[in-house]
Amino acid sequence: MAGKDVPVSPLAPKRFPKVPVVEGVAFATAEAGIRYKGRTDVLLVKLNEGTQMAGVFTRSKCPSAAVDWCRKVLPGGRARGIVVNSGNANAFTGKKGIESVDLTAKIAAKALGCTEGEIAIASTGVIGEPLDATKFNGVLADCASRVKGDAWNEAARAIMTTDTFPKASFKRFKVGGVEVTLAGIAKGAGMIAPDMATMLSFVFTDAAISAPVLQALLSKAVKGSFNAVTVDSDTSTSDTLMLFATGAAKARGQKEISQLNDPALSSFKRALNAVLLDLATQVVKDGEGARKFVKVSVEGAKSANSAKRIALSIANSPLVKTAVAGEDANWGRIVMAVGKAGEPAERDRLAIFFGDTRVAVEGERDPNYSEEATSAYMKRDHIEIRVDLGLGRGKASVYTCDLTKAYVEINGDYRS
Amino acid sequence: MAGKDVPVSPLAPKRFPKVPVVEGVAFATAEAGIRYKGRTDVLLVKLNEGTQMAGVFTRSKCPSAAVDWCRKVLPGGRARGIVVNSGNANAFTGKKGIESVDLTAKIAAKALGCTEGEIAIASTGVIGEPLDATKFNGVLADCASRVKGDAWNEAARAIMTTDTFPKASFKRFKVGGVEVTLAGIAKGAGMIAPDMATMLSFVFTDAAISAPVLQALLSKAVKGSFNAVTVDSDTSTSDTLMLFATGAAKARGQKEISQLNDPALSSFKRALNAVLLDLATQVVKDGEGARKFVKVSVEGAKSANSAKRIALSIANSPLVKTAVAGEDANWGRIVMAVGKAGEPAERDRLAIFFGDTRVAVEGERDPNYSEEATSAYMKRDHIEIRVDLGLGRGKASVYTCDLTKAYVEINGDYRS
Repeated sequence: MAGKDVPVSPLAPKRFPKVPVVEGVAFATAEAGIRYKGRTDVLLVKLNEGTQMAGVFTRSKCPSAAVDWCRKVLPGGRARGIVVNSGNANAFTGKKGIESVDLTAKIAAKALGCTEGEIAIASTGVIGEPLDATKFNGVLADCASRVKGDAWNEAARAIMTTDTFPKASFKRFKVGGVEVTLAGIAKGAGMIAPDMATMLSFVFTDAAISAPVLQALLSKAVKGSFNAVTVDSDTSTSDTLMLFATGAAKARGQKEISQLNDPALSSFKRALNAVLLDLATQVVKDGEGARKFVKVSVEGAKSANSAKRIALSIANSPLVKTAVAGEDANWGRIVMAVGKAGEPAERDRLAIFFGDTRVAVEGERDPNYSEEATSAYMKRDHIEIRVDLGLGRGKASVYTCDLTKAYVEINGDYRS
Repeated sequence: MAGKDVPVSPLAPKRFPKVPVVEGVAFATAEAGIRYKGRTDVLLVKLNEGTQMAGVFTRSKCPSAAVDWCRKVLPGGRARGIVVNSGNANAFTGKKGIESVDLTAKIAAKALGCTEGEIAIASTGVIGEPLDATKFNGVLADCASRVKGDAWNEAARAIMTTDTFPKASFKRFKVGGVEVTLAGIAKGAGMIAPDMATMLSFVFTDAAISAPVLQALLSKAVKGSFNAVTVDSDTSTSDTLMLFATGAAKARGQKEISQLNDPALSSFKRALNAVLLDLATQVVKDGEGARKFVKVSVEGAKSANSAKRIALSIANSPLVKTAVAGEDANWGRIVMAVGKAGEPAERDRLAIFFGDTRVAVEGERDPNYSEEATSAYMKRDHIEIRVDLGLGRGKASVYTCDLTKAYVEINGDYRS
C-alpha cells in the first residue's frame, strides 16, 4: 500500500499551493473502506446548478467502467457532482462494473438532488476487483452535507494511490474584464500502475463557458500537457481529465462564452495551458522512483506530429531513462532513440544538446564537446535534452523522469 | 566493461553446443585493442569461393557505417569474408565512419585475396567514437593465416559485449538426400545498449543455395525469431543478421537450389527457423539483468500482425516486466497492455492465461482462478503468458525477459 511509508519525491514542489475557492465548487472526503485503512478514499465534489462539463479519457481499448460511464454522460454537457474513489479502479470487472457505476451515480444523485446523468465518476486502484458501490451508501449523503470550497488539499489527498504528494495548481485572471479562477487537482505516479496508479485530473473554473467550447479548449490543451507526459509508456484503463465551468462569474458581470472564436477566451486558454502543464508535470515529478525530471524537446522535424513521436521515443526509451538515472550524458542512446522512432531523420544533419551543451552535430560527436561540463550538468535534478533534426520546422516537447531501481522495486518487489 | 566480473545469466544453456564444422567456413580471432584489454575483440571469417550471402539489418534511421556497408555489398550476393569487431559500433561517426569501413574492407580483402565487395562488416560497442581501422592492419592478415573450421566458441566470444555467455546453435539435416549443416553464432544482451550491446548473428551452411533464395528465406524466417524478441524495446543502430551458403555440399552431390519453390528446401526452412529461434531466444536469455524468460502468445486476434503488435505491447511494458521480476501474477497489467496496443480488442471477450491457469475470462477475473497456484507458477524461470482475444484467427508469439534492478544497474549505474 503506497503513500504512507514511501518518502516524498525529491522533485515535489516545496509546498501545496494556496488554491482559492472556485465559486460554485465544494468538496468533501470520507473513508469508505474500499481498500485502504486509516485514510480517505472517496471524494465528492458538489457543483453549482448549470455547471458545464468537458472531458478527455484514456485511449485504452479496455477502459474502466467509470470511463465508459463518463463517456455516456458527457454529451449532456452538464454536471452537478463528481465521485472519485481510490483503491479500486473498477476496471475489467464485466457486468459487475456496470452495475457498480450505475449504483454509484444513483447514490450520488440522491445525495446531491440531481439526475444520474449529471454525475461524473472516476476510480483508481486495483484492476479486476469488483467495486462494491454499496459502500457509498450513507457516505456520499454525509459528504454532501459538509462540502467546503477550500478543501483542496483534502480533495487532492483522497484520490492519491502511489502518489507521494497531493497535486494542485491554479491561476487567477480576467475574462472579459471580470476576475475568474481556474484551479484543479491531479493524481498519478506511473503513466499507469494498475495495482495502484492511473492519471486523474479535475479542473474547475467559475467562468461562464458553454460545454462545447470547454470541450474544444480541453481537447486542444491536453496535447501539450497530459498527452505530453510519460513515466513508463504504459497507458491506464482509467485515465480521466475533466474540466468544469460553474458560470458563477456571470453574477459578477462576465458574459457567457459560447463561441470558440470569442476573443475573451484568450486569457482562459493561456491559463488552461499553464494549469494543465503544471498538473501534468507534477505527475511526472511523482513518477514512480523518479529522481530526475527530464524535458525532451525535438525541433527541425518534418512536422509537429513527427517531432512528438521522436520526443516520445526518446522519453520512453529504457536506455535513455537509465542513463539519466546514472547521470550519464549518453548521447549515443539519443541517436538510437531517434533512429528507432521510424520518423524522417537524417543521421548527418542531427544535432543533440544536453542543456546548453551541444554534444553532437552533423552526424558525429561535437568536436568542442566537453564530457566534464556535460557530466556536471547531468547531476542536476532537472535535465533538458534537445534534438535538432535539421529537416523542417516541426517541434514538440514532452516531459518524463528517469528510470531507477526504485521504479523496479515499487512495481516488482513490493508484493514479494 | 562487461562480460568479465558479471555473473553468467541464470537462463544460460548448460553448455556451449558441440557445433560441427561447416565445410567452407573457418574462423580466427585476435586482440586488436579497440577498447577491451585482455580479451579478443575481432573475428575474421573466411568463406569458400562462391559463397552466397543474404542479410537483414536494423530498421533504425541512424544505422552504423558497417550496416550501410553491408547494405551496399549485399546485392552482389557473394562473400569471401566477414570482419566483426566488438568495443566500438562505428555508429554516428560521420565521414570518419565511412573511411573506417572502407579501410577495413581493403585490409580484409587483401588478407583473404578477394575483392572489397565480397567482405561483410559488423561492429558493436560504443556509439559516436571513431573506429580506428588501422588497428586491423597486420591483424587480419595474421588471422587469415590461422583460420580453423571448429573455432566456434572463440568466434562467439570475440563478438561479445555485455553478453554473459557465448551463443551458438546448429542443425544437421538432409537437403535433396545429402547431409548438410546449418550453424550460427549470435551476440546481444539488450535489444541494444549502445555503449556495449547490439544484436549480431552470423549463420552458415554448406548447402548450395543461391543468394536470392537465401535472402527470401532469411527475410521470412526472421519474423518469428529475431524480429520476435525484445529485451527493452530499444532498437540498435547496428543490428545485423547474415546467412551464408558455401555450397560445399555440391561436391557431395547436392544439387544447387535456385528456385524458392524447390521442394528440397523444406528441410532447410525448418532448420533455419529452429536455429534462428534458438539464437534469438539465447539473446533474450542473456537480456541485461534477466532472471526470467517470458514467452508471450496472443491468439484470436483480427490478424497475425495485430496479434504481434499486442504481444509486443505486453512484452515491452515496463509494468508487465517488473511484475514478472517480482513473481507477481499481475494480470491487470496484461489487460492494460492489451488496451494500450491500439489494436482491435474487446474487453468482454478477453481471456488471459499464466501457464495453464486461466486467470481472466469474458472481461473479468476467472471465478475459478487460484492466486496460490499462479503465484507458484510465477516462481519458475520460464513463464508463458497467453492472451486469447476471441475475435479472429490471428496469432503470434514473442519472447522477452523480466525487468530487474540489475537492468537499471547495468545501464545506469555502471559508469558512476
